[in-house]
Amino acid sequence: MTRSSVPPPVTAVMDAASAWLPARMADVESRLAELSAGYGPRLGEEAEATLTAGGKRLRPILVLMAAGDGAGDRAVRVASAVEMVHMATLVHDDVLDGAPVRRGRPTVVARSGRDRAVGVGDLLFSRAFAELAVDGGEAEVAELSSASVALALGELAQRHDAFDTSITEERYLERCSLKTARLFESACRLGRISSGKPGTEELASFGREIGLAFQLLDDVLDVTGPPERTGKARGTDLIDGTVTLPLILARGRDPGLESIELRGLGRDAVETVCDRIAATGALGAVRDRAKHGIKRAKEILDSPDFSGEERELLGMIADGVVERYA
Amino acid sequence: MTRSSVPPPVTAVMDAASAWLPARMADVESRLAELSAGYGPRLGEEAEATLTAGGKRLRPILVLMAAGDGAGDRAVRVASAVEMVHMATLVHDDVLDGAPVRRGRPTVVARSGRDRAVGVGDLLFSRAFAELAVDGGEAEVAELSSASVALALGELAQRHDAFDTSITEERYLERCSLKTARLFESACRLGRISSGKPGTEELASFGREIGLAFQLLDDVLDVTGPPERTGKARGTDLIDGTVTLPLILARGRDPGLESIELRGLGRDAVETVCDRIAATGALGAVRDRAKHGIKRAKEILDSPDFSGEERELLGMIADGVVERYA
Repeated sequence: MTRSSVPPPVTAVMDAASAWLPARMADVESRLAELSAGYGPRLGEEAEATLTAGGKRLRPILVLMAAGDGAGDRAVRVASAVEMVHMATLVHDDVLDGAPVRRGRPTVVARSGRDRAVGVGDLLFSRAFAELAVDGGEAEVAELSSASVALALGELAQRHDAFDTSITEERYLERCSLKTARLFESACRLGRISSGKPGTEELASFGREIGLAFQLLDDVLDVTGPPERTGKARGTDLIDGTVTLPLILARGRDPGLESIELRGLGRDAVETVCDRIAATGALGAVRDRAKHGIKRAKEILDSPDFSGEERELLGMIADGVVERYA
Repeated sequence: MTRSSVPPPVTAVMDAASAWLPARMADVESRLAELSAGYGPRLGEEAEATLTAGGKRLRPILVLMAAGDGAGDRAVRVASAVEMVHMATLVHDDVLDGAPVRRGRPTVVARSGRDRAVGVGDLLFSRAFAELAVDGGEAEVAELSSASVALALGELAQRHDAFDTSITEERYLERCSLKTARLFESACRLGRISSGKPGTEELASFGREIGLAFQLLDDVLDVTGPPERTGKARGTDLIDGTVTLPLILARGRDPGLESIELRGLGRDAVETVCDRIAATGALGAVRDRAKHGIKRAKEILDSPDFSGEERELLGMIADGVVERYA
């Protein structure tokens, strides 16, 4: 993993951490590259592009940080497995959305078609469990498969809710929990289990809080743009019919948004809707919630189960989730 | 599992087997129904329709028969996990093919759209590993995930080869191995591992042989029809661009078939191609190969590692694969 390919919060953590963390993250990158090879040149190319396309690598870093400075091959494998499940989901999501771009690069579905993209996702998914099984225990497979079930349910719930502008905040939060927070939680839990250190459930809660904050802020970013920063067009969620907290809160503040019809919304119209959402101040309210979540997450770290370095580095990751959107 | 919903070979085995096999298969059916519930009414409905839509249940029966008369809850869970991986693959395949019907019933993708179908497949897949993890070991997760990797690679290879009429027999057999034989092999291996009995690798070879024969005969059936029997239109593979052994062998016998272009083949034209393939005698040649495979499979059962009942029942399953196409 070259420093230049990772976003600031992760880079900062890498710089602050003792040598073990960058060394183990480099191992994760090598492992992901290794796993994508060996499937024949054409597929390898595709899987490699997907696996190494960068991304924030937040989940594998959480695994390693939860495992701590004793993190060895086992933690590297768990971190790789978690990232592969995440990427499998992204590849499948892009199939459903017909998304042309992710992280500023063409998606697998855009480059190679729906068929191959569904297959590549299935492959990444299977490979994740194969990786975990190398020297893994029952508890770890149970944890990752349960998180995968949550991801699939979250995705299904989101599709089910598509274009329904009447969904409640509660329903939205439930979806975020399934779709995002659960895997962050698992990353922390899996890393900690592999270390045998105390504080597993505290770290799981920490992961859940920052995962949720991450999703809230991601949904803000969809409304604010700009594309150069987010790697996708502004208002993409709205066009896909995904109602998120910014719109839910804005609806209560601007009655004109109540009657909005997302289906068939064009590029220009979506810019107008984004502007109207922003004008209500809803974005600030969502950001505040996310910040409160980050605060709660950092309070969890006060437990004596965590070392000074853990508190510092995990705190930086938590702050980084917010800073990314500052 | 009601007798009327299963095809003759399975029914025959059930009738011949001691009481334990039908009892355990009934447990598998209950477990599959249970697993599909609890995801909310709408999704439950869909997953249940998928899980209980029948099918031959060959893979779970192989798991149970490999486990033998001591098969308990563990074998039931393994059998359910294997069937769920199989069904996840079917659901995703149908998305890619846009298949309207399977087993004479509307597919998930036809009933609920692509989005939900990808999600339902992912859910089944995740659920399978969760099921295996309940009280499973590392070896079992490694086995099932490796089989799942093979399934995904087989599917990708098939998509990659689509509409390429020049593919070789060797390549076709490699695809069959990945796409079909590997999971039959795993079903046998997983069942046997769970029993602690000898003969695991022999049974795995048995599974591979009948899986391959099953695929060969399935590909014959696509050419012969009739739809009332196969549950799908005649020549569906050809229309999807999937070149199978009947066409590969027929091409060498009828030079006119060399230049055939599958892309854009209409319903009438495909009937003609099917008739021409049949006229070359290629179907008989493919059937003969499958029968040889079944013979080899039954020879494996001669090993002293297997009991008389095992030899009899597994032999019936092997014969059933052929009889289904007689």
